[in-house]
Formats: sequence, C-alpha cells, structure tokens
Amino acid sequence: MIEKLRDLSQRFDLCCINTGTLGYREPIAITANRIAEAGFKWITPWRQEVDERNPQLAADAIRSAGLKVSSYCRTTYFGGNTTTERKTAIADNTLALEVAATLGASSFVAVVGGLASESTDVEADRQHIRDGLSALMPVIRSTGVRIALEPLHPFYAANRSLLNTIDQAMDWCLELDPKGECFDIAVDAYHVWWDPNLSQSIQRASSRINAFHVCDWLRNTQEPLLDRGMMGDGVIQLQKMRSILESCGYQGLVEVEIFSRDNWWKVDPSEVLRTCADRLRSVC
Amino acid sequence: MIEKLRDLSQRFDLCCINTGTLGYREPIAITANRIAEAGFKWITPWRQEVDERNPQLAADAIRSAGLKVSSYCRTTYFGGNTTTERKTAIADNTLALEVAATLGASSFVAVVGGLASESTDVEADRQHIRDGLSALMPVIRSTGVRIALEPLHPFYAANRSLLNTIDQAMDWCLELDPKGECFDIAVDAYHVWWDPNLSQSIQRASSRINAFHVCDWLRNTQEPLLDRGMMGDGVIQLQKMRSILESCGYQGLVEVEIFSRDNWWKVDPSEVLRTCADRLRSVC
Repeated sequence: MIEKLRDLSQRFDLCCINTGTLGYREPIAITANRIAEAGFKWITPWRQEVDERNPQLAADAIRSAGLKVSSYCRTTYFGGNTTTERKTAIADNTLALEVAATLGASSFVAVVGGLASESTDVEADRQHIRDGLSALMPVIRSTGVRIALEPLHPFYAANRSLLNTIDQAMDWCLELDPKGECFDIAVDAYHVWWDPNLSQSIQRASSRINAFHVCDWLRNTQEPLLDRGMMGDGVIQLQKMRSILESCGYQGLVEVEIFSRDNWWKVDPSEVLRTCADRLRSVC
Repeated sequence: MIEKLRDLSQRFDLCCINTGTLGYREPIAITANRIAEAGFKWITPWRQEVDERNPQLAADAIRSAGLKVSSYCRTTYFGGNTTTERKTAIADNTLALEVAATLGASSFVAVVGGLASESTDVEADRQHIRDGLSALMPVIRSTGVRIALEPLHPFYAANRSLLNTIDQAMDWCLELDPKGECFDIAVDAYHVWWDPNLSQSIQRASSRINAFHVCDWLRNTQEPLLDRGMMGDGVIQLQKMRSILESCGYQGLVEVEIFSRDNWWKVDPSEVLRTCADRLRSVC
C-alpha cells in the first residue's frame, strides 16, 4: 500500500498545523506567522485564540501570514442536564459556525461532549447530542461551514465525548444526514489507532472522512489528555494509517495536533514546528 | 428488562470477590476468611497471593474458609519481541493453568498483553497473542480449566492488552475455537461500558460470556489503572448492563473487582467487603 502514498516531503501545502500543538502561548497573529515561516500553508485555530466578537481581526492576521484556515476548533459540548443548557450549547455553536465562516474555514470540529454532569444515561445523552447536531443543520447550510464529527478515545466517554469510534461517527452521519450535506468525520490517529475495526471502519466511512490528525501515543502514557507525543516518539503506525486512508480515497490534509503540557508546550514554538516538519517528512 | 434480573439481595451465592478489590494486603488465608465472613461464597484470587510451587496450600485455605474459586487471575502477557520470549509466556501460562486446576477454578483470566516492548506492529502482535492462546489449547483440555478472554479498555492497548472490545473477543473465540471447547469471554463493566456497540456485542457473544465484573468508572478519573470506583460511585449503569447480559442468557456470577490504590485499598478490608455487599444489593 505504501507506494500509493502521496509524498509529503515536498508537499507542505498538504500539511496543517493545529495551534493546540503550540500550546496557545502567543497571540494568533504571531502563531500564524511562525507556522507560515516554517513552510506550512494551513492552520487550524482554536476558539480561545480568536476574538469571536470581531473574528475579522484573526481572519486578517491569518491571511496576512499567508495561511489558509482548514478547520476551527471546537464545539461546545452538546450535552446538558436541562433543555435550557442544551439550547445554550446550540446557540454557542451557531455563533462559532458563523465565526468559522468569517475565518474562511470549511469545517468546524465537533467534540460532542460526554455525559451531562448529572446524568449516567449514555443512550439518552447520545440522543441529546444528536439532537443538538441536527439543530445546527440549517446554520451549516447557511454558513457553508460543515461540521466534522471527531470520535474521541473511549477514555473520554464520561466527560468529553460519547462519540468514540469511526463506525459510530459514520452511523451518526448516515442517520442525521444521509445525503452528506452537513457532517463529515475527522480521524485523529491518537483516538482510533487501537480500534480492532480500524481498516474496515475507515473504508466504510471513507466518503465522509475530511481530516486526518496526527501525533503519537506514548507507550506508557499515564495521562490521556495533555501527554500526546510527537509523531515518531510513540507506537502509532502513522504512515500505515495514512496509506489506508489514501487507498480509500482520502485526499485531504495531514494535520498535526499535539497536546503536550509538560514537554512540547515548553519548547520554543519555532523549534516545535521544525520538529513537526521533520517528522511529517520522515514518519507520517 | 429490569424485571428479568435475578435478585442479588439474598443471593450472595451469585456474587464473587476478586481479591484485587482488597489490594493483596493480607495472606490469602486471611483474605478468604474475610470474604466468607462477609457472606460471599466465591473468590477469584491473583497469582501473587498463591505459592505456585505448592498451590495446594492456597487451595486448602480457600476451602477451609468455605469458599469456592471462580477464576484465577491472570495470564502472563503473550506478546514478546522474540520467539523465546513468547514461548516463555506460554510455558508460564501452562503452569498457571495447572495451578488454577489445583485451586478448583474453572476459568483462568487472560489479560493478553499489549504491544511487545520493541514493536509497533499491532496486527503482528495480535497474531502472536492468538498464537500463544492457541498453543495453550491442549493444556486447557487436559486441565479442564478454560481461558476467559477479557477485553481491556482501549486505554491499555499499547502496554496491557491488544484485545479491547467484546466483539473482538468473540471474533477470536470463533477463529481459535469454533466449537467452544477452550475459550470464554469475561465482561468487565469498567472496560466496555463506553462501547457504542455494547448491547449488540453482548448479544452476539452471549454463548461465550462466562464472567461479569463490576466496579465503577469515576466521572473525572485521571488514572485508568488503579482509580476504579465502588459500584454506585461512578457513571456505569451496572444494573442495566446486567439486565442486558441476563436477558441474553447469562447465569454466571457477579464479581467485584476494584483496583483503588488511593481509596479502597486504604480502607479496612472488612469495611470494603461490607460496602461491596451493600452496593451489590442496591446498585448492581
């Protein structure tokens, strides 16, 4: 399969930096310039970096740096103990879709949320999440910004995401949006590498997969949120996973997203980006 | 479904204590007596509590306490970087099956192991694991002790288990042992509660499920190995899961297995057992 892979070594127009990789340490204008100086063409910013009352400022800064926005991170959790809480989440995500449109993003990443804080009802809360996603479909159509459902590692089921496998994401896509007008799937290697059904689920979902996020799973990690590894420092066979995706027709970006509080977030941002570039060439 | 549930409140002959719940703090004879005094009839001991050169000692102590042994915990990991390492694991697991037979256990629990320490090849390592399980089939037949494949939470895929879902365990059962002579499946609520395919996978695997382990997933747990909660203190709908199992024909034990280094392992063992009894009655 490997010979089918697109050559990333000269194609940084195919690579994207998710700003989470740099730890949100600097204003978005500086971050965007660093990413552009490192040779990348695409950025995925986070909401806390954008003044959502005036997103044109961030849009201008990113454009001035010479970058394009791939996706915007991320949804407010859709769960909630009450109808009011869930409506508030929908309103907030509506605003964010409009901001994403201003930024020129084609995709808004959904981290759907775990159990509501007073709930243990997995099925009911999953339904609330799907109801919230469904309520956004008119806004998706009007803004032109699609939502990318990102399955998160099962470790986060209780408190971050009740969407945990590619297969489940595809089930939701087919249920909510059979024509494929609104929802895509973001595949993050960190969240799905363990899945015994990985190849089959990628194949089944291939028409909807619109993002591939890379980092690495450190072999003896104890902290599943902010201890992600740099590509090549862990156990994920990233090139193999990309070859599966591309053999199923994936032509999208390879996006680096590393949350690493005690390691990479303490390294000089330009050094982080140089390392990302090296590793994208050598192990992705 | 709930009305189909067996009544645990007066049926501690249906309940088992896995000694991991008490933190292996005392000799097996004392632990067995405590478990019996708390009213339970079944015990699942761990290998570090048993002198495997003379397992009759532990067998006698457990029998003297009035308990029966349900399962024996657990396999040495089957993975390995070399043929020699993998053969050593098979030899060790052969010994343990013989010990399990001496203890009167009908089942030996398999925690199959993650990636070999120098490997990142998930598929090759899964094959090595299946090869190791397959090599034990003659010993399973001769000892009469079956192996219970326990899918572990995907968090452990790298370093503890490349077997992570009930569906995957059933696939392995059907591949290795289509006639059902050697391998069963142990379902631990902690490992599988998040699975979007939970009900269907239980139904599909129902002919092989021979154990149901309970504890709880603490809502904001940060430590996935030794921070398990007491039943009722977390988010798992244990009674619902048991009702699914029993509606699919499960008639086996309900086994308490709580690894809780900083909480329950510091509580007086008899108090832990009283709490287990209360919670088995009220929330399981």
